[in-house]
Amino acid sequence: MSTVSETDRLARVVLSCGVEPGDHRTSSLVRQLGAAKALEEQLVPKPGSRLADRLRDVEPERQLEQAARCGIRFVVPGDPEWPAGLDDLDHGVVVQGLGGTPPGLWVKGPMPLTGLATSVAVVGSRAASVYGAETTRGLVDHLAVSGVPVVSGGALGIDFVAHDAALLAGGATVAVLACGVDRVYPAANRRLLRHLAAEFAVVSEQPPGSAPTRQRFLARNRLIAALTRGTVLVEAALRSGALNTVGWAEHLCRPVMCVPGPVTSYTSQGVHLCLRRGGASVVTHGSHVLEVIGAAGEHLVEEPRGPERPHDQLSGVERQVLEWVPVSTPAGVDSIARLSSLHVRDAVGALGRLQGRGLVREVDGGWRLAGAG
Amino acid sequence: MSTVSETDRLARVVLSCGVEPGDHRTSSLVRQLGAAKALEEQLVPKPGSRLADRLRDVEPERQLEQAARCGIRFVVPGDPEWPAGLDDLDHGVVVQGLGGTPPGLWVKGPMPLTGLATSVAVVGSRAASVYGAETTRGLVDHLAVSGVPVVSGGALGIDFVAHDAALLAGGATVAVLACGVDRVYPAANRRLLRHLAAEFAVVSEQPPGSAPTRQRFLARNRLIAALTRGTVLVEAALRSGALNTVGWAEHLCRPVMCVPGPVTSYTSQGVHLCLRRGGASVVTHGSHVLEVIGAAGEHLVEEPRGPERPHDQLSGVERQVLEWVPVSTPAGVDSIARLSSLHVRDAVGALGRLQGRGLVREVDGGWRLAGAG
Repeated sequence: MSTVSETDRLARVVLSCGVEPGDHRTSSLVRQLGAAKALEEQLVPKPGSRLADRLRDVEPERQLEQAARCGIRFVVPGDPEWPAGLDDLDHGVVVQGLGGTPPGLWVKGPMPLTGLATSVAVVGSRAASVYGAETTRGLVDHLAVSGVPVVSGGALGIDFVAHDAALLAGGATVAVLACGVDRVYPAANRRLLRHLAAEFAVVSEQPPGSAPTRQRFLARNRLIAALTRGTVLVEAALRSGALNTVGWAEHLCRPVMCVPGPVTSYTSQGVHLCLRRGGASVVTHGSHVLEVIGAAGEHLVEEPRGPERPHDQLSGVERQVLEWVPVSTPAGVDSIARLSSLHVRDAVGALGRLQGRGLVREVDGGWRLAGAG
Repeated sequence: MSTVSETDRLARVVLSCGVEPGDHRTSSLVRQLGAAKALEEQLVPKPGSRLADRLRDVEPERQLEQAARCGIRFVVPGDPEWPAGLDDLDHGVVVQGLGGTPPGLWVKGPMPLTGLATSVAVVGSRAASVYGAETTRGLVDHLAVSGVPVVSGGALGIDFVAHDAALLAGGATVAVLACGVDRVYPAANRRLLRHLAAEFAVVSEQPPGSAPTRQRFLARNRLIAALTRGTVLVEAALRSGALNTVGWAEHLCRPVMCVPGPVTSYTSQGVHLCLRRGGASVVTHGSHVLEVIGAAGEHLVEEPRGPERPHDQLSGVERQVLEWVPVSTPAGVDSIARLSSLHVRDAVGALGRLQGRGLVREVDGGWRLAGAG
């Protein structure tokens, strides 16, 4: 049950429709006065600003009604579905003039936003490489199978692959848009966005019908960072918008995880820049992401050890002897026994067993490692 | 001029020939008692050890004479050429039972070891990929041209490329070997090692004639780390010996620099492991290495900014307008003016200029970004 008053909800609809996203002054007013009082304050005409006129033009009941007719709901703080992570945007972080908690979220789709509590953002370049796409698939597959919802921006490139791979693995995935949730941008992702809206959720702080602009993309990025437990950057050129999302994650103290790539790849330059700036961790597998976002002690990843080698199975004495067998020019048993501090008898026995395992070779009455150059 | 007494030098020759490298107990004795007294101590026969016999068998004057005849010198602490960095090995770090400053270094080649004061180690897999080899070339080329000597292990793969690229760029490069400096291992690097010994330097703590063994490789790795200002890891599989060198660099508080690679590449797994362990920095260019090893404020690298874009040259008003032009569906001048808080007159002017630059398009009496999907 929502504890939100009708007045508060309607005031938030007006603010959502009349104020541009990321207007941190308005969201600061809302925090201090509540939505209704903040709206009243903003309805007082100010010289040089037409905000009051714009707000007066909004008909909130009609907006909600129209939205509902399209299957779109308006979620506000106090609703059971309100994602707590968004409140971190109220702690005063402002980037490029943008910031603040949105008055509400317009949501289309059956998935409740509470499902995002354990989600991860996967972002990257629109101009992704095959490497980036394949890496994203592998990583997202692991997250989806582990029950971690994947959030992205519904764009081309890495965003598309992240959503698509989550769906393929039977996982949940949500797109956060810079335009209204009833719109399809980019047009090429029409099928994907329709599917997300029908089966999961598409989210925006923009009211239905809004067009995407640069500012709205930048404001949207802060939502992707705030809605998730951490942000994974797969591929990004130096000026990729994904770096903006990563910046928001850092400001919000959410972990940033980078998937490295070839230093020769244009689309990994932004990722390496991010790693060089410090604070981000390297992830090369979905399990690494789980380790980072998990609660302490959860999802711990064992350090990889590389393939088992023949001498992993040797006895202590055999290993000791092997350490001192020359790589190329053969050495006599006496010398090897001396170096390994063993009796000649024991060294001879060990050398015989090592030979049986194909690790050493007897050459000209001495011993050397087998298979070395 | 060396301040080393003849007794001290000869005692060190005996220790170098009779004691295995990385014997930190002996080097601890030498630190406490001086080489001559430490040798005396070790010459006392101990039950179960034949070390005293081995030491007694060494004829130090003959060793030095034979070495000199092959153009090999024995450098010890107190010699002007002694690399100060090696003394850091005396601070008690022991890895896999190995540690300590060597009694001396056997050196072949005209380059004085003082030249290593500004050097960098470049290490990696023997089984290097084309990616690793090319990346090493680019990085080492920058170091060599900047006058930074490159130290490596004279092995196949990344080691070879590091030496070779330094030579190609007219830089200095030194190989630190696990066998005697008169020996050639691996045989495939005969030409390279001969050239280094003739023009630069080949270094070992092993006396001439010694064969390489596993233990000697591990002991050698500590010298590579200690002789240099920092260690660059280019490519390494999970069990690469290069990770051992990196471990030494960390223990000696030398910076470790990692060149990332594709997460799909077997030979980058060890590098990514090293980055995930923390403490290492990401480098993707030689200039990044210079920045890390330089004195404070030296060689600072400007953060890359990506290619200049058309709207980098816009006026404030033009940018303001551009931020609010929709990506796809055209918006009227009124709406754009309102969103950008400008007079319609100013917005019209700016839109015209933006159109001239090919950034926006007039469609159906409204405006949208040009070139977007």
